Amino acid sequence: MEVVVPFSTDGPKSRLSPVLSAAERSELARAMLDDVLAAVAATGNDPRVLATGALDADPGFPVDVDDRPLTDAVNAALDARLGAGTASGGDPDLSDGDGDASDDDRTASTSSVAVVMADLALATPDALDRLFAARQRADVALAPGRGGGTNAFVAAHPAFRVDYHGTSYLDHRRIAAAAGASVATVDSHRLATDIDEPADLAEVLIHGEGRACDWLRDAGFALDASGGRVAATRT
Amino acid sequence: MEVVVPFSTDGPKSRLSPVLSAAERSELARAMLDDVLAAVAATGNDPRVLATGALDADPGFPVDVDDRPLTDAVNAALDARLGAGTASGGDPDLSDGDGDASDDDRTASTSSVAVVMADLALATPDALDRLFAARQRADVALAPGRGGGTNAFVAAHPAFRVDYHGTSYLDHRRIAAAAGASVATVDSHRLATDIDEPADLAEVLIHGEGRACDWLRDAGFALDASGGRVAATRT
Repeated sequence: MEVVVPFSTDGPKSRLSPVLSAAERSELARAMLDDVLAAVAATGNDPRVLATGALDADPGFPVDVDDRPLTDAVNAALDARLGAGTASGGDPDLSDGDGDASDDDRTASTSSVAVVMADLALATPDALDRLFAARQRADVALAPGRGGGTNAFVAAHPAFRVDYHGTSYLDHRRIAAAAGASVATVDSHRLATDIDEPADLAEVLIHGEGRACDWLRDAGFALDASGGRVAATRT
Repeated sequence: MEVVVPFSTDGPKSRLSPVLSAAERSELARAMLDDVLAAVAATGNDPRVLATGALDADPGFPVDVDDRPLTDAVNAALDARLGAGTASGGDPDLSDGDGDASDDDRTASTSSVAVVMADLALATPDALDRLFAARQRADVALAPGRGGGTNAFVAAHPAFRVDYHGTSYLDHRRIAAAAGASVATVDSHRLATDIDEPADLAEVLIHGEGRACDWLRDAGFALDASGGRVAATRT
């Protein structure tokens, strides 16, 4: 299965600006992308970067460039992979959208695609396998992010499309329901933890195992347990 | 299996004081406790409140009162349930602590006990079942909390004890290793989300299904997607 990994090459991770320079934010974002691509590849699936600009992905993963906003770029990727949907002119009323289709029905009628955000620095092959396996019991499997986002999903329904604005996890449940697609939710702290704000960096230091964790340690970050919750502070 | 649920009756949830009065914090804390007790009971296990003061638990769950700090009170509960440990005078060197004991060995030699925090307002029977099932593959199963805490665990090793100060998730891994106990980690957003700070309230509104979610809605809280991450704001 193709696993699309959206990535912004244009000033990523602006909410980390209180603790990291623009150049550092780009380096950390790239380390997280590399960690996510490696974790996806380790599941046996096929990662594919969807970047806003040119990028040499290591180690040679394919890159598509689409400079539109995230929602538009991901929906174009879904159009191309899920076949007949709203945007590609298909009639969703003709799809098997009763939510009770057998696995065989779904496999026969619809391809699957996953979308995994590039800032999931805690993602492991095990956590991703749980998401991908949830495809067997629903047309759409969602991994909610902290704060109501959608950090990753697998879709196997031709009419499912995304809207990343606002509380996208709840919106995506509504979108799936309106399309007649059954939904499963994957309960994962690793997939719920996107790295957006300074407080998130502590999670990388506690649970991370890859390049992003190494990058933070090399940049002088360490855990500080002197406050309420443990924080990542720079020395 | 007994599932101990520590609960503070003395000014709980002080970090929510920016958005809730002391009386409101007590009400919300009690609603979360009731949700956790109900979720534990739904797994078929036996919840037991470990309170710092007198409490009528609904609907009639047993309550033990221990006014010592959390770490001391939980360790006393472990002493009483896991048998020979450091605090009860047993010799941990005599325990089967090679981390490779078969399930039969563990079942024969050691009882199990779980400790689940009372502020896990998102806890569901499914999430707790994943934690409790992890007992089958390790002597100690930990559910890390956001920020490095330990929100829930199951222990079946006589020498495992807790220390909730600091980054307790990492400390508990070290304590288990020093005792020769094997460790499993449960990757759950629901169990990682303890409700301590105003930002956590959004998680209850997004994912909650019980009394705590109802309480927040009745108190006027709603999701606000106007900022970066979705927040819970009061109207």
